[in-house]
Formats: sequence, C-alpha cells, structure tokens
Amino acid sequence: MADSPLFGRVALIGIGLIGSSLARAMRQWKLAGHIAGHAKSERTRAKAVELGLVDSIHAEPAAAVAGADLTVVCTPLGAYAAIGAAIGPHLKPGSTLTDVGSVKQAVIRDLGPHVPEQVHFIPGHPVAGTEHSGPESGFAELFQGRWCILTPPAGTDAAAVEKLAELWRRCGSMMEIMEAGHHDQVLAITSHLPHLIAYCIVATVTGVEEATQKEVIKFSASGFRDFTRIAASDPVMWRDVFLNNREAVLEMLGRFSEDLAALQRNIRWGEGDKLEDLFTRTRSIRRGIIEAKQA
Amino acid sequence: MADSPLFGRVALIGIGLIGSSLARAMRQWKLAGHIAGHAKSERTRAKAVELGLVDSIHAEPAAAVAGADLTVVCTPLGAYAAIGAAIGPHLKPGSTLTDVGSVKQAVIRDLGPHVPEQVHFIPGHPVAGTEHSGPESGFAELFQGRWCILTPPAGTDAAAVEKLAELWRRCGSMMEIMEAGHHDQVLAITSHLPHLIAYCIVATVTGVEEATQKEVIKFSASGFRDFTRIAASDPVMWRDVFLNNREAVLEMLGRFSEDLAALQRNIRWGEGDKLEDLFTRTRSIRRGIIEAKQA
Repeated sequence: MADSPLFGRVALIGIGLIGSSLARAMRQWKLAGHIAGHAKSERTRAKAVELGLVDSIHAEPAAAVAGADLTVVCTPLGAYAAIGAAIGPHLKPGSTLTDVGSVKQAVIRDLGPHVPEQVHFIPGHPVAGTEHSGPESGFAELFQGRWCILTPPAGTDAAAVEKLAELWRRCGSMMEIMEAGHHDQVLAITSHLPHLIAYCIVATVTGVEEATQKEVIKFSASGFRDFTRIAASDPVMWRDVFLNNREAVLEMLGRFSEDLAALQRNIRWGEGDKLEDLFTRTRSIRRGIIEAKQA
Repeated sequence: MADSPLFGRVALIGIGLIGSSLARAMRQWKLAGHIAGHAKSERTRAKAVELGLVDSIHAEPAAAVAGADLTVVCTPLGAYAAIGAAIGPHLKPGSTLTDVGSVKQAVIRDLGPHVPEQVHFIPGHPVAGTEHSGPESGFAELFQGRWCILTPPAGTDAAAVEKLAELWRRCGSMMEIMEAGHHDQVLAITSHLPHLIAYCIVATVTGVEEATQKEVIKFSASGFRDFTRIAASDPVMWRDVFLNNREAVLEMLGRFSEDLAALQRNIRWGEGDKLEDLFTRTRSIRRGIIEAKQA
C-alpha cells in the first residue's frame, strides 16, 4: 500500500522535548501506524495522553516496545543501561532500535549488550533542540532543516539504516552517516564545549556580589544574555552528556583553557596586536557559517 | 521655538556603526540642526556623504567640532587621547563633549585633560550594537529600548546632563546615570567577559585539525554558532575595550577560570550531582532575564 505509514508500531521511550517533537512529526507526516509511549513519571505519561502524542501509554518500557517495529530511546543518557536491560528481551526480531542521544559511543556501550541479534541497532542523533524541556515544549517542525546523524556499527543492515534515514528525512532532517567515535569528537567541539562554557560563564557572572546582581540582569543584552539561553538547557540531559563524553570534552576544555590563558596574558601585557589578530580571525569564521547557510 | 532641534550643530568624531546610527536617529527625529562629521579614512568620509549622514564632512576633527553645541566621540577607545588633544582647544564654551565608548574610566583619563573648563564633559555609553561595523551598517532604530549609561564626573552641570539624556531618550534609549568605575565593573561582567569568552571559544574551535573544520561549520547550529555572532564584532573596538578595562576584565577572567577548573574536575571525577546543581542554577537565571524583559 502506497499510503501505509513508514513504520507500523513505534515505541517512544521517554517523551520530553525530542520524544514529543518526534511524536508530533510522525503524526503530522503520517509516519507511524501506532505510537506507544513510555515515560518514567506519571505526570509526563498523563501529559502525553492529554496532548494526544501517543496511541497507548505504558508505565513499563517493556510493554511499550512489545511488538514495535521501531523503538526510539529519548531519555537522558544516564538511563540507557537500565532501559537496555528492561527492553532488550522484548524487542521484536527484525525491528530497529535507535535513540536520539548527543553522545554515541556511550550508547553503543550501554544499549549494545542488550540488543538481540535479529534487531537492527542504529544509534542516532538529531542535532536539534531548544532550551525548553518536557512534553509540552515539543513541536513537529523541530527537525526541519537540521542535521540528523546516524552512527550504525559496521555490518548493520543497509536497508534498515535507509528506512530509519527516510523517517528522519520525512521529519525534515538532512542526513549524515558517521562513525560513533568521530561523532563524539565533532560534537564535543561544536556542541558540548560551547554548552559547558555557557554554563560556566552564567555561573561566574551570577556569582558576583548581590549588589551587582540586579545590574547584571538589567544590562544583560550587552553580551551576557546570549549565553543564558544555552545555559538554560536541560540540566539532567547535559549532566549525562558531559559524564558520557568525558574524554573528548576534557580534551577540548584543555585546549580552550590554554587559549584563554594566552588571551589573559595578552591583556595583562597590553599586546594589542595579538588581540586584534585573533579577533580578526574569529570574525572570518562567522562568514564561513553564513556562507554554509547555518547562521 | 518649539520646533527647533534639540542641538544646533552636532559634531560626530568617527562614523562607524554607532556614529552612523546616531546620525540617522538624529535625522529621523530632527534632533540636530547641522551634523558635522569627521572620519579618519577617506573612504568613510565619502560614504558618510553618499549616505546623507552628514551636512558637512571634515578631514580634521578640529574643523568638525568648531562651533559645535555637542561633540560625540564615536571612535575606538585607542584613538581618544589623540582626538582629545586635537579637538580640545576648538571646543565651544558652553558646549557638551560626550562619547559612546564601552569603557568609561579610560575616557575620563584620555579625554578629560583636554576639556576646557567651560565645556560640559559627560562620558556616555549606549549599550547597543551589532556584529557589523562601518557607516553602512548603522540604522536609526539601533538604540530603541536599549539602555544608555551616562557617567558625568561629580559637579557636572545638571542641565547639560539632562539635555544629553533627552537626546538619547528621543533616540529611544532608557537612561541610567552611573559612576564611571562602577560602569566599568558592571560592563566587564555583562559584556566584556562574555565577548572575551566568545572570541576564545571561536579561536579554540577553529583551531582544530583541518579535517574536522568542515564538520565544525556544518554542525555549528548545535551550540557553537551562537558564539560566532558575538565573536564577529569589530576587532579594533574590542581590542581597545580589553586594553582599557584591563583590571576589571582580568578580575572577572580570574573568577571564570576558577569556575571552569572546578567544572573540569567535576567532569573528570564523574561528579554528576555537582554538574546538575550548577546547570539547574544557571537555568533559573534565564528566567530572571525573561522576567526583566531583557531576553
């Protein structure tokens, strides 16, 4: 049937910003015959039903994945190992297991051992999000024009990968296939380090004396504000990102600290030419991003 | 006359993003009888005339300020001392001298000694800008709904301060009067440190191996992109900000480095609870900014 949905039954394990956006997108573009949802909290389960995001809701992840053609893990990374143990034995032979986590080697480490041999295991990462979280904050267009990276282990069934890629394409994503370790390095640079720095500067700035606090908010539009949006992202999700991409993040953090120490020295010693050189280089990067239509 | 402009002749020393925006705003709201412009470069002077920003253009700053009721210095801070020496003897008695620089103690240090006794010297800082520079990038609405801070030295004529404040209010600014040293501390926190960190992270990220460069641009929307806009700001202007607010910037940079070292340790030792605590605190700051309508 040309009009049948891409997947029959889809199980969403976790219904936060990403899970609920995927549910909305699958509804909007008719990509799933039945959406079975699981969320740990009673409140989220009730909300998912109220918002019409799911066709069935399950307190146990095993019940959600039973009979599913596609299972998508959408929880913070720290929950993956327990979820893997809970759902592994219930995954349908021939079905696909994927996820949306921001780190991919840890996913292979935590979910991998629980995946039965007849299940296609294809870790994924839609590079999309906002600073809001929870099922209410999702929207069907979240993935439009954004990258989605799949990191299938060597030997994964090509047809299964293509079918999952098609789901994301129909959600509006541009697709990229990458090795998991390379993914974690690239994202440590483009996403994890920037988020860590944003969290840190917001902590530093708001750690100033009480008397100055009000003025910090008042004049925040002069630069500080731009960091606060990033540093308002989900605390648990980001805690797990840093704990699960430790090596790559620490490596980038080391480089950043060295560069910052050099800048500090330039300022202390009044080395204006070096400052100007660096600021001129960083300005040209912006042009590259604008030219790549990612601005 | 109720309809006469607020100031008769206004001299703009420097016609970049801020100077040209002020010219446009003064034109739009009829705040100046005559706008006399000076720019160091031949190209900028020609551009200012072509864009209709000025009524007269002058290769020498002294010629621009001759007979001016208000002189506004709109160049990078590093040029102030020379400009002060050049224009000081030509400032009209009873007129006002102000500026738009992002640091205020340095302005008092560099311009102050050149100001004749009968001239009202009122350093100012419109807290507004974009990542673009040059006379083409200005627009009349730049100051709308943004703060403008004046830092008049003790004993400055109150009527002169009020008249300058009225100019900025008519350009759409919200006004604040502050002591220069306090201004420099607050802005080091809200503006100078964030810009320095943004410059640094862009330098670090773009310092990675050539092979990864393309992917950094490609996946920049995952966090990095937000920093590149700030780090595309005018290199000379920012060089001068850091060199001229050295103490306050180094103080904040020291605090930031300590906080970052603590975060690095949290990640290395897997202290998830501390990461989550900090990320939860920073999230609440965002709410404060949204409530203050500065988001």
